[in-house]
Amino acid sequence: MFFCVFELFGRPKLGGCLDPDKDRIVNLTEAWPANLAPAPTDLLDLIKRGDEGLDVVARLLDSVEPTMQASTLKILPPIQRPPKNIFCVGRNYRQHIIEGNVARGIEPNTFPEHIEFFTKAPTTITGHGADIPSHSGITAQLDYEAELAIVIGATGSNLAPDAALDLVFGYTIVNDITARDLQRRHGQWFKGKTLDGTCPIGPWVVHKSVLANVNNLSISLKVNGEVRQSDNTGSLIFDIPTIVEQLSKGLTLEPGDIIATGTPSGVGYAMTPPHFLGDGDLVTVEIEGIGRLENTVRTKLNT
Amino acid sequence: MFFCVFELFGRPKLGGCLDPDKDRIVNLTEAWPANLAPAPTDLLDLIKRGDEGLDVVARLLDSVEPTMQASTLKILPPIQRPPKNIFCVGRNYRQHIIEGNVARGIEPNTFPEHIEFFTKAPTTITGHGADIPSHSGITAQLDYEAELAIVIGATGSNLAPDAALDLVFGYTIVNDITARDLQRRHGQWFKGKTLDGTCPIGPWVVHKSVLANVNNLSISLKVNGEVRQSDNTGSLIFDIPTIVEQLSKGLTLEPGDIIATGTPSGVGYAMTPPHFLGDGDLVTVEIEGIGRLENTVRTKLNT
Repeated sequence: MFFCVFELFGRPKLGGCLDPDKDRIVNLTEAWPANLAPAPTDLLDLIKRGDEGLDVVARLLDSVEPTMQASTLKILPPIQRPPKNIFCVGRNYRQHIIEGNVARGIEPNTFPEHIEFFTKAPTTITGHGADIPSHSGITAQLDYEAELAIVIGATGSNLAPDAALDLVFGYTIVNDITARDLQRRHGQWFKGKTLDGTCPIGPWVVHKSVLANVNNLSISLKVNGEVRQSDNTGSLIFDIPTIVEQLSKGLTLEPGDIIATGTPSGVGYAMTPPHFLGDGDLVTVEIEGIGRLENTVRTKLNT
Repeated sequence: MFFCVFELFGRPKLGGCLDPDKDRIVNLTEAWPANLAPAPTDLLDLIKRGDEGLDVVARLLDSVEPTMQASTLKILPPIQRPPKNIFCVGRNYRQHIIEGNVARGIEPNTFPEHIEFFTKAPTTITGHGADIPSHSGITAQLDYEAELAIVIGATGSNLAPDAALDLVFGYTIVNDITARDLQRRHGQWFKGKTLDGTCPIGPWVVHKSVLANVNNLSISLKVNGEVRQSDNTGSLIFDIPTIVEQLSKGLTLEPGDIIATGTPSGVGYAMTPPHFLGDGDLVTVEIEGIGRLENTVRTKLNT
């Protein structure tokens, strides 16, 4: 099952399909059985209904004619307002760690022994197709980071490694747009990671039941059609169950929590010379089996 | 005006008074005028009503007999669920920076040139009088940090320095409980800062109108009655307007956002030898003109 949230007559609607390549989706909000009202209008609402909600979706996708075309709709973030800041994992792809070490002039083969967690505020969230503000008055080093993201489906903490995936609802794509100068200048990474509109997410959330091979998916990022990042989620140093288990130690995860899992090599600041994002740049992230997230950087959006 | 949230018959109620030393508060939720229903049941609800809400409170505090005694009530966090993670400022008191540098064996007089921001998840929030879980299975180095915290009252970004205080609703107390071993081990500070129940906050939020001297308040912390931290908010390297202005660059602040502003010297990890918190330790934070926040560390709470 694939889920998206789209806008219709100014309101969010939950869409669903079994195969996004067919570009035909069911408006689940409209099709929702009246006796199970109110209908979910976004994905967080559906997630909170647990297996009962999924059972209804399965029946609807099997029986209702898809009347909407995702590619012609205004797509919204699948989760507009998660219960916490978006969790992010720092350096987690081997080649990205090496390029970062080289860029900072330290021993290339220095790898983190423990997961580096940081966050992005919910105000960073923006949807597929939305413009990314360049924040040109604040940063001169806006950069991209293609990432596989986990969407949490239930409440839990202190999970055993083999129970970690039970807490997962599904997966999506995040572009962890980063102001490199602010990231460095402010010591902790948070400030450079949290500018408004710098967390494009979606368009699809794929339920975990249809993405069994999450540890073997090609992931890539293009800027104006030029491939900058290309790797496979199999290269993750800390894999999905390890990330969820470690994060859950002493911390209660909740439905709708989002965890971005780190980015491959090829980021702009590690290029020679560095290449940063500017007005008009089209950034496209693709992850096998999940979809394609596309956004354009715009300077006019700055306030 | 002083605000607190307390529990009555299993529900949160908003309390208010003009002088918390008198220990008599008005149940604002009950006293709220019927023609302005629904009544606010927590502080975030009131904040979102802006000046109109404050005008009602002023009238009620002037006319309604206070029937509740704060010291006998179960006090809840003044804001249970802020719209984002709690923002925190790292090293911001001169003597605390020096003690940290000494503990880490670096040049004592090395000060941050820019504000270090990090966050604590909303699941860390707990109220005055609540037990703090020791998380003894996860950390052996639980530490305290007394902090003045800002409560944001309106929406805004990219504020000019002289407009920063316009966005502030008021002030409260935060104890930024920190797992030092996790803070270090995970590179970024977030993991060690975000264990469940490690952000005691309150009991009072003081409206800014009655705390004009926010840059000159004594702040202290005791463990089992022994003074560990004692300083004055006048020692802040980055003051309140600077923190709000800097944080708001490219980031939209919203009503109910909380910003903890850093802690004075005297933390446990910088003592010789280090002293960490354990089962039964009573931690008391006091800030002049705001109040006293008291919590006990308990190992039995661990899951």
